[in-house]
Amino acid sequence: MISFARGVPAPECLAVEELADCARAALERDGRAILSYGPGGGYGPLREWLAERHGVEPSRVVITSGSLQGFVFLAEQLVRPGTRVLVEAPTYDRPLKILTRLGAEIVPLEMDDEGLLPEAVEEALDAGDAPAFLYTIPTFQNPSGRTLSVERRLRIAELARARDLLVLEDDPYGLVRYDGDPLPSIFELTRGKGVAYASSFSKTIAPGVRVGYFVLPPELAADIEALAVSTYISPPYLSQATVLEFLRRESFEPNLERVNGLLRERRDAMLEALAREMPDDASWTRPDGGYFVWLELPSGPPSTELLVEAEEAGVTFVKGGDFFADAQRGHGGRGGEKALRLAFSFVSPDEIAEGVSALGSLARTSAPAPL
Amino acid sequence: MISFARGVPAPECLAVEELADCARAALERDGRAILSYGPGGGYGPLREWLAERHGVEPSRVVITSGSLQGFVFLAEQLVRPGTRVLVEAPTYDRPLKILTRLGAEIVPLEMDDEGLLPEAVEEALDAGDAPAFLYTIPTFQNPSGRTLSVERRLRIAELARARDLLVLEDDPYGLVRYDGDPLPSIFELTRGKGVAYASSFSKTIAPGVRVGYFVLPPELAADIEALAVSTYISPPYLSQATVLEFLRRESFEPNLERVNGLLRERRDAMLEALAREMPDDASWTRPDGGYFVWLELPSGPPSTELLVEAEEAGVTFVKGGDFFADAQRGHGGRGGEKALRLAFSFVSPDEIAEGVSALGSLARTSAPAPL
Repeated sequence: MISFARGVPAPECLAVEELADCARAALERDGRAILSYGPGGGYGPLREWLAERHGVEPSRVVITSGSLQGFVFLAEQLVRPGTRVLVEAPTYDRPLKILTRLGAEIVPLEMDDEGLLPEAVEEALDAGDAPAFLYTIPTFQNPSGRTLSVERRLRIAELARARDLLVLEDDPYGLVRYDGDPLPSIFELTRGKGVAYASSFSKTIAPGVRVGYFVLPPELAADIEALAVSTYISPPYLSQATVLEFLRRESFEPNLERVNGLLRERRDAMLEALAREMPDDASWTRPDGGYFVWLELPSGPPSTELLVEAEEAGVTFVKGGDFFADAQRGHGGRGGEKALRLAFSFVSPDEIAEGVSALGSLARTSAPAPL
Repeated sequence: MISFARGVPAPECLAVEELADCARAALERDGRAILSYGPGGGYGPLREWLAERHGVEPSRVVITSGSLQGFVFLAEQLVRPGTRVLVEAPTYDRPLKILTRLGAEIVPLEMDDEGLLPEAVEEALDAGDAPAFLYTIPTFQNPSGRTLSVERRLRIAELARARDLLVLEDDPYGLVRYDGDPLPSIFELTRGKGVAYASSFSKTIAPGVRVGYFVLPPELAADIEALAVSTYISPPYLSQATVLEFLRRESFEPNLERVNGLLRERRDAMLEALAREMPDDASWTRPDGGYFVWLELPSGPPSTELLVEAEEAGVTFVKGGDFFADAQRGHGGRGGEKALRLAFSFVSPDEIAEGVSALGSLARTSAPAPL
């Protein structure tokens, strides 16, 4: 099976030998602290490293088992049944599931090629109770691959200030950039006021280390750390200390360059194959980084049907509807019916060419005959 | 400060060098799997090892970041506001806080020197709605140090069967035994039917590895694994793989023997000091293992007051009231007012002698003058 479904780095991306050495070195350096209970917010020296990088006090950094665990804490802290939460449509499916489980009223906001529409945020703010937060992935968004323009980042930063809106800026892909210059984060534009910034080392070192982190407003950081303590006392420091050792050796930048080079080839292979194989009315995003392309096939079959056919042909992907809130609520999905999320991170350029060719054939065959 | 409050192993217990070597070896052996996403229920080879040890299918083992994280999952799965949960009185304070946060109706059950009274379980079952589960720490209980007798284990196993009661058997201290023979677990007595068995490597390898686990009835295991996936996708495998490497090298038994030897000395120092220093009407438990002694000072001051005086004298402990459900609900505490939990695991024999001597002086001074 050629998997365009797995939004994970290829195994070749993992610096196994060096991380093995880092794990040992970390324990030799600071074993007693790493092997004992300690602060719920994470391994102290890594909190300090991250705090310096983001220009905040270490107490504002909370390191969790991947950033999803932090999202769960934040949602448990801020969301009660009926609480409004603003999200991009489409957006990452796991947070949608968590919000649904907590009984949030999920308010989907329209996007275009430049990302979230600030006027959609404004309208949503006018249309009901103050939301607990806006959840956005501004750079190389999951699932669309879209990046929020600088102008819009500024407008959202201004809205956050003027309307007292907490922005949860999820930024796992920011450093996974193949072309162009990095954009300022919303966190940077607001100097961290009213923004909860999340990132992780899943895409830049390894997903299995499960080292995600939040940079939070001070009071919220204290609340989230207390939730962490009452859930698991302290997190497993060994992974966190291994990541820090990797950072301290200055292995991070060269490794990221290597990984980004490898992924750039895959992105290129994906865009070339789409241009070659897809019907004329198909459209897709052209991300400068990240893992995902969002493909729309307006005259193709519903992506639920296409998925069945594709899997018979040995190719899989995630159907667009999974990334819309309504689908999570069992309303049958509104949005994304003719869309596919294609992850190019896990498969080789050759597999990408082969898989997209198969999808192209299915999209053409299934398209209604011209009049 | 001499801390009888910290129920954690002394730093000398930690096999730092060997664990450093195990971490490296684990990554060299199976780095790609360890550094990738995988099953939410834990690192496959460690699940298999634990499954074999407990005689179940690996899918029934769920490994979490310490067993408290597993308790949170289990409680989130089974408890709704108003759900009854039976607990020992006194019991470990962290689960009480989690149950309180979830709105459980906590039903405290009486204990004596042989542990939980089976008739108290029976009465509680007769007195209201079916509880979600009974939470018990049958061996070297936290905070009392008490161990449930074999006869009572059999009666509780029988009650579980006859009354369809789920027993959550928390067993972190079972292997931390200094004298006598191990008793069968309730899990073993029921062959795992209707029992959720929890343990961890916090007390036998290191708390900081955060490797706890549950052995669950099959359906519940699937539910808990799904909750784990939706919370953190997969847990950090590096700690879990490091623990497995330690087990595979057969380092576990000799290390445990070393640690138990070290802790036995502390337990002995504690019991000797109590006999030497405490007033005549004081009573305390004499555990064959674990970390804790439960001290009752019937003619002494309330333990809240004693704690203030003790800390001024450079000694700290946890006051008995913290381990009773009512205290958690702000009812001012019922039970444990004249009791202290003394942990002997973290402090040296000399410090134990010194600290107990200070407590003894305070207990005598504060005791009402004889008539």
